[in-house]
Amino acid sequence: MSLSALTKINILKQPTQSAWIEQAIANLDIILLDHSHCERKAAGVALNLMFRYPSYAPLVRKLTAIAQEELDHFEQVNQWLDRRGIPLAPLASPPYGARLKAQIRRDEPQRLLDSLLVSALIEARSHERLGLLGEYCPEPELAKFYRSLTASEARHYGTYWILADSYFERELVRQRLDELAAIESQILSSLYPEPRIHS
Amino acid sequence: MSLSALTKINILKQPTQSAWIEQAIANLDIILLDHSHCERKAAGVALNLMFRYPSYAPLVRKLTAIAQEELDHFEQVNQWLDRRGIPLAPLASPPYGARLKAQIRRDEPQRLLDSLLVSALIEARSHERLGLLGEYCPEPELAKFYRSLTASEARHYGTYWILADSYFERELVRQRLDELAAIESQILSSLYPEPRIHS
Ligand SMILES: [Fe+2]
Ligand SMILES: [Fe+2]
Ligand SMILES: [Fe+2]
Ligand SMILES: [Fe+2]
Repeated sequence: MSLSALTKINILKQPTQSAWIEQAIANLDIILLDHSHCERKAAGVALNLMFRYPSYAPLVRKLTAIAQEELDHFEQVNQWLDRRGIPLAPLASPPYGARLKAQIRRDEPQRLLDSLLVSALIEARSHERLGLLGEYCPEPELAKFYRSLTASEARHYGTYWILADSYFERELVRQRLDELAAIESQILSSLYPEPRIHS
Repeated sequence: MSLSALTKINILKQPTQSAWIEQAIANLDIILLDHSHCERKAAGVALNLMFRYPSYAPLVRKLTAIAQEELDHFEQVNQWLDRRGIPLAPLASPPYGARLKAQIRRDEPQRLLDSLLVSALIEARSHERLGLLGEYCPEPELAKFYRSLTASEARHYGTYWILADSYFERELVRQRLDELAAIESQILSSLYPEPRIHS
């Protein structure tokens, strides 16, 4: 199956391989549970940035909205878990998040730039993969649910990018995003053996 | 001025002294800025507990709702800051939060019990103090805003208490809440020199 046409956000260097979607649709329950963790983590990332930069007004305002939406997604995914009788449970994270986080430089202002761009990339990838689930998930209601989330993830990508663009020079943003995007695709180039949103 | 009739939540051992409300209404802008930080912190506390107990379904469900409401309050307070031309800025915290947090025992299940009860007390005190601002703030629109928030803070107090009650024996909850409430009132017995919601 060819998935390349689905990569609507050009920033991603490599589209998701078909092996991922096959793994995901064979493990819909685990993917839902992992998705729940992803949404909670996405809210946590937005809130952490608000704590780290409490006086950066545009960042605080935009990330408040993102945190609210992620909590709303979290709640919606948890309702799906409930309906399918899947208990909330911890789940080992794939290396994706930690390896991307390791790319964030420690000193400011690089730390802010990298934090925003890493979040932008994670949102872009989430957008792509939820879109794939929305297209290929064999359960129509669940597929519809995934499709209902993709637009916000694309918006979140845009918000993180716009914030980076508002605090840094465009050329610097473009260059660093390019570097991080190459790493992001490289991390996903070998499929993680456990089914995850970011495996 | 006698404030005792305003202590609607019986758990608080001592009602707020009139010195606090005098300090607060003489420093409405700083109180608003501190309030903004309080709402963000309240969202952070709820989210942290969701991260620490990811498979405690009732806790996750109820704290998702609290985190959403606190973010909503945060946004509303920030709109007030905006309207009054007060820039978002860091503000040294009074010792209240740290001293209460120091009461949380390290080992489970005590850690969960204490975390829930400390949050319950902070919410109860916030409810009381926002109520006082709603009553005594000399600016009618702002007073009305404070009154609009008090009901949720009372509900938040109730939610944390109910969670404690659902995970622990009632007598144990009562006893520990009694101990912590005594400490909470003791912390506030001498007014912190800087105007703060929890000074
Ligand atoms: Fe989301
Ligand atoms: Fe998102
Ligand atoms: Fe609140
Ligand atoms: Fe609250």
